Amino acid sequence: MRAVDIIIKKRDKRQLTTAEIEFFVRGFTNGDIPDYQASAFAMAVMLNGMTPTETTDLTLAMAHSGQVLDLSDVVDIAVDKHSSGGVGDKTSISVLPMVAACGLPVGKMSGRGLGFSGGTLDKLESIPGYRVDLTTDEFKKQLKEKGIVLTGQSLDLAPADGKMYALRDVTGTVPSIPLIASSIMCKKIAAGAQAVVLDVKTGLGAFMQTMDEARELADLMVAIGRLAGRKTVALLSDMNQPLGAAVGNALEVIEAIETLHGGGPADFREHCLHVAAHVLVLGQCAKDLNEGRAMAEKAIADGSALEKFRVLVQAQGGDVSFVDDMSRFERAKYVEVVNAPRNGFISQIHARIVGEASVALGAGRAKKGDPVDHAVGFVIHKKVGDQVQKGEPLLEIHANDEEKLVEARKALLSAHQLVDESVPPLPLFYE
Amino acid sequence: MRAVDIIIKKRDKRQLTTAEIEFFVRGFTNGDIPDYQASAFAMAVMLNGMTPTETTDLTLAMAHSGQVLDLSDVVDIAVDKHSSGGVGDKTSISVLPMVAACGLPVGKMSGRGLGFSGGTLDKLESIPGYRVDLTTDEFKKQLKEKGIVLTGQSLDLAPADGKMYALRDVTGTVPSIPLIASSIMCKKIAAGAQAVVLDVKTGLGAFMQTMDEARELADLMVAIGRLAGRKTVALLSDMNQPLGAAVGNALEVIEAIETLHGGGPADFREHCLHVAAHVLVLGQCAKDLNEGRAMAEKAIADGSALEKFRVLVQAQGGDVSFVDDMSRFERAKYVEVVNAPRNGFISQIHARIVGEASVALGAGRAKKGDPVDHAVGFVIHKKVGDQVQKGEPLLEIHANDEEKLVEARKALLSAHQLVDESVPPLPLFYE
Repeated sequence: MRAVDIIIKKRDKRQLTTAEIEFFVRGFTNGDIPDYQASAFAMAVMLNGMTPTETTDLTLAMAHSGQVLDLSDVVDIAVDKHSSGGVGDKTSISVLPMVAACGLPVGKMSGRGLGFSGGTLDKLESIPGYRVDLTTDEFKKQLKEKGIVLTGQSLDLAPADGKMYALRDVTGTVPSIPLIASSIMCKKIAAGAQAVVLDVKTGLGAFMQTMDEARELADLMVAIGRLAGRKTVALLSDMNQPLGAAVGNALEVIEAIETLHGGGPADFREHCLHVAAHVLVLGQCAKDLNEGRAMAEKAIADGSALEKFRVLVQAQGGDVSFVDDMSRFERAKYVEVVNAPRNGFISQIHARIVGEASVALGAGRAKKGDPVDHAVGFVIHKKVGDQVQKGEPLLEIHANDEEKLVEARKALLSAHQLVDESVPPLPLFYE
Repeated sequence: MRAVDIIIKKRDKRQLTTAEIEFFVRGFTNGDIPDYQASAFAMAVMLNGMTPTETTDLTLAMAHSGQVLDLSDVVDIAVDKHSSGGVGDKTSISVLPMVAACGLPVGKMSGRGLGFSGGTLDKLESIPGYRVDLTTDEFKKQLKEKGIVLTGQSLDLAPADGKMYALRDVTGTVPSIPLIASSIMCKKIAAGAQAVVLDVKTGLGAFMQTMDEARELADLMVAIGRLAGRKTVALLSDMNQPLGAAVGNALEVIEAIETLHGGGPADFREHCLHVAAHVLVLGQCAKDLNEGRAMAEKAIADGSALEKFRVLVQAQGGDVSFVDDMSRFERAKYVEVVNAPRNGFISQIHARIVGEASVALGAGRAKKGDPVDHAVGFVIHKKVGDQVQKGEPLLEIHANDEEKLVEARKALLSAHQLVDESVPPLPLFYE
């Protein structure tokens, strides 16, 4: 078997066999197949596509390019949850404690923010001491003993994916749906997931900007899950406007904690309950979504979800006093309230512009390895469909630099569109 | 400007600007743009194509990636001739002396054989001492003083093309018509050509197997020539059966010399006269093809073409006694005559099978750097359309190894198809 023949086959739109895909991934991982062949292959896949069977083969080959976690001695059923990324998406931070409080152990490996989209690890690091670099053994031990883990991805999981992603980033082959789907799913499988709830975001602030793309990605990941023998559910959720009110690392953790307290913005709370219900059903803790939702609501109401979060923070070395006294979180130097410039109804809060403005403030990173400012960000008071009066507070900007504050104000005002006629609110979920 | 954005633009089927193409070729040549970006780019071009304007920009950028020969102080008009490669194609060896004898100085840089297709340099090296590694200064000096040069390509010409070709070979991006066209034309332009006669082969023994592909390549190269300010003519010629009778290095040189003597196979002589006429017209030595052809015929008849070949061989250090006494060429150990297995008409002599059989005998190379056996090959007595009687000699095999001889006989008999009904001969040229 030769790498060039596999590239030619995909170039000519023919379907690759399992053996061919395994040969290619194995060769790429161990260095026998050089980057220049892998990038030509990625471009051929980008332009000619892959069938669900090929994509599943690619997913499994990448999952098995390194260690594959076996959690069967730790939990009855390992459920994972994945969001395709967006602005203000702090769902994992609230949902994991909710479902863990309902008796379903959950361990999750999250990522860092890149581009306009935030990352769970950056957010959690707002809590001093919180470790996101657990070893595999620590992961398994904590999952068994505490029933909840939220850490970074081990370096030894799916190394082919990390190598391939770095190459795709510089060769124009990022937005290939089979490559995105296999990259997401191989990490879930390598991390030991037997069931996965996928939260695929669509809209202005998502990587999948159209509903068609989002649905294609969701369908493909569900197909991979089925072919790979993993129970998989995909939700299509809105990312035209930011999720919840807070955008920024500490601000989002505060909002997630408030939500565990029974507060928080209505849309975010609703989003979390819906995702939690799916996780509980997939994890065989609830017989249907209604029961799952009721269990999650109860975990909030009786304080057990918040208590699980406290357990999580403590187990991973974080300062638990931050959970009980949120005023301890680092505050930005400047907090400016921006008022509505006119009367009207909010017709758009452009999530991507908000996300990019938060990166410019310092909350995210333009390139890998950039430092992150945990204190800065936004709190957005209104949602699409809300009516506002001129002079009424629209949002808050938290900044550590006056010049950046001015830029952020300009960007946030441009992200908000106000119209005279009333506008229906955006749905939380599409499907 | 970033390489990845240029790749993305081509991935998305948008047209690249001159500046973008120059940036990419310059960066690739000097190593700023790594192979893995160039191969992704090549695959995007392979699958999404390039306009004639883009291909011309690519051609000129690659031509200028190294030294560009200026022959204006040496000749009035530098005419070059290029064949897209085939089996039994020794045209340059006969045509260059013909046109040089007519007073048109011609210098040509040729290539080596690869795969089933022979190479002019390998053939010429059948003459002991013949140098194919002239320096640029030697090239210019000989062109000025002798009016004829036939050597290998200088290493400093179009280095981007050499680098790109090596990459295409291992990334499945060889059969891209814009990449083939720019690779051919950039070398012609770098070698100083102001006018080019292109002999594009089509058929079973050509790289362009269908007429449509051959025409597309020819049209694109003519368009590049026009956009780059070079007079360019393209001929479409047949490569379903081998050209002439001889296939193999020394055997082809002998046939080329016989042709300069006024002998040689009718089809090869006709092919050479036609190509020579075009070269003479483009070089402004003849007012039309009829005059050009008459001039070339006269150069054969009066011995001046053969004398020019003698001058060429002597100038490049070759043993001239081989030109005058062809029995001096190395002979293979075994020469076997293969007779027709039945009565009939020849309907096919599959050029690719013949070419591959000659490589297997040792006349060509499977990969770069392999040694070549100059003595071995075939002399094919009949052409498509000829009638043969059972037992009549069909061809000769020249071999240095008995086992290979047996294999070659099998292959050559399978390449020849005999049918009962009469078959029209194949045309030499299509357009």
